[in-house]
Amino acid sequence: MSGRLAIVGLGPGDDRYLTREALHALGEAEVLYGYGPYLDRIPSRGGQSRYASDNREEAERARAALSHAAPGAKVAIVSGGDPGVFAMAASVCEEIAAGPGSWRTVDVAIVPGITAMLAVAARAGAPLGHDFCALSLSDNLKPWELIERRLDAASGAGFVIALYNPISRARPWQLGKAFARLARHLPGTTPVIFGRAVGRNDETVMVTTLAKAVNAPADMATLIIVGSRETRIIAREGRAPLVYTPRAVEEAIA
Amino acid sequence: MSGRLAIVGLGPGDDRYLTREALHALGEAEVLYGYGPYLDRIPSRGGQSRYASDNREEAERARAALSHAAPGAKVAIVSGGDPGVFAMAASVCEEIAAGPGSWRTVDVAIVPGITAMLAVAARAGAPLGHDFCALSLSDNLKPWELIERRLDAASGAGFVIALYNPISRARPWQLGKAFARLARHLPGTTPVIFGRAVGRNDETVMVTTLAKAVNAPADMATLIIVGSRETRIIAREGRAPLVYTPRAVEEAIA
Repeated sequence: MSGRLAIVGLGPGDDRYLTREALHALGEAEVLYGYGPYLDRIPSRGGQSRYASDNREEAERARAALSHAAPGAKVAIVSGGDPGVFAMAASVCEEIAAGPGSWRTVDVAIVPGITAMLAVAARAGAPLGHDFCALSLSDNLKPWELIERRLDAASGAGFVIALYNPISRARPWQLGKAFARLARHLPGTTPVIFGRAVGRNDETVMVTTLAKAVNAPADMATLIIVGSRETRIIAREGRAPLVYTPRAVEEAIA
Repeated sequence: MSGRLAIVGLGPGDDRYLTREALHALGEAEVLYGYGPYLDRIPSRGGQSRYASDNREEAERARAALSHAAPGAKVAIVSGGDPGVFAMAASVCEEIAAGPGSWRTVDVAIVPGITAMLAVAARAGAPLGHDFCALSLSDNLKPWELIERRLDAASGAGFVIALYNPISRARPWQLGKAFARLARHLPGTTPVIFGRAVGRNDETVMVTTLAKAVNAPADMATLIIVGSRETRIIAREGRAPLVYTPRAVEEAIA
């Protein structure tokens, strides 16, 4: 009997974004794998074992979970946000492709979750209301030149851009360079949203402009949305501004 | 006292993708607005009134809900998928920008949901595991030339592409033309996923290639994901294939 591996998206922050399907998948699992802080968000249940690992050990975690599931166990890997967006699902697929044939017999089920850009966008208004893209700024797994080329292509063609993994201690200069690159294509007044720890009690959402963005604080828990030429801000007295990208574009110049 | 307007994402399909936050927002509302079939998915509650409207009447629905909320009511608009992705949140922002000052006093809360591309991606594997974009193929609100330019930019720079609103009775030729355009940049073997009615009992997910995609059936309920040059397929005996885009890119040629 082949086992089952669910890769479950918890959404960002606390449990407010958990879906019914995610709750069901967590309940069915005999074994949970995941980054420690994600596992800590799930109430413990008798008879369910847990294996916490560091955030950087994705490939190892995927292999351990597949090895555990293959002989017949019901295993779940938990993932923050959506497991399919810069997260565990691709890692598991990579390991299945490279691993023993028995891993291909595992019943793999991916349970989607609210990914960070959707949560940050919701807090700010509707900045992703028109065509947009999601781009990881980490150059650990791709060359920096390719990231610049994608920033050029996306901003030049009028996509709103969600930046994942904008900065870390090991990658301190990439974000500033990305803003400078985007400024070749977009006016300094382009709205930029910094969402940090959205869905947690200490969440912050800040709206600024591309010209000022380089001075805004950001860290690993930050998701940044850079508007297009069409993105607008509605000022509201006594309330946070609403940032939105209209559904209609009049001209083909974007 | 100013009112409250929640714009609530239900996710695709039935209630399996509802989040706790969405359930809470629906429970708080005195009045619900939305497209009829979305409202039908929500259990009725005593004292809660409902206003169903046609799917094409987004602007009218937004204005009616804002007029209702402004004097002090607790109103919710329900939206399939995520309200921020080609859906109601941008429509509401547009109406606030153009409407009376009292609409700016409304406490607007957007509750994110699982958008179709995340659900379809989860069913297929991890096709959005690397940089990707979301593009509406509808030329009702933007010129077709701009859509072609965006298809060129996104595929040329190595983004995986999720196509929303791929086809309708009034827009029968656009999808075929989009595939032909993408074929200028991508090999015919590029994986393409057609997800229809995902999250419903009659869901179908089909994996094909760019060369064969033009012959695959699609309608308004279909979400299409076109891979990049990096996207791969894992064949599995007795199981559906897994489609994934690796996290790493070796070369800058994409």
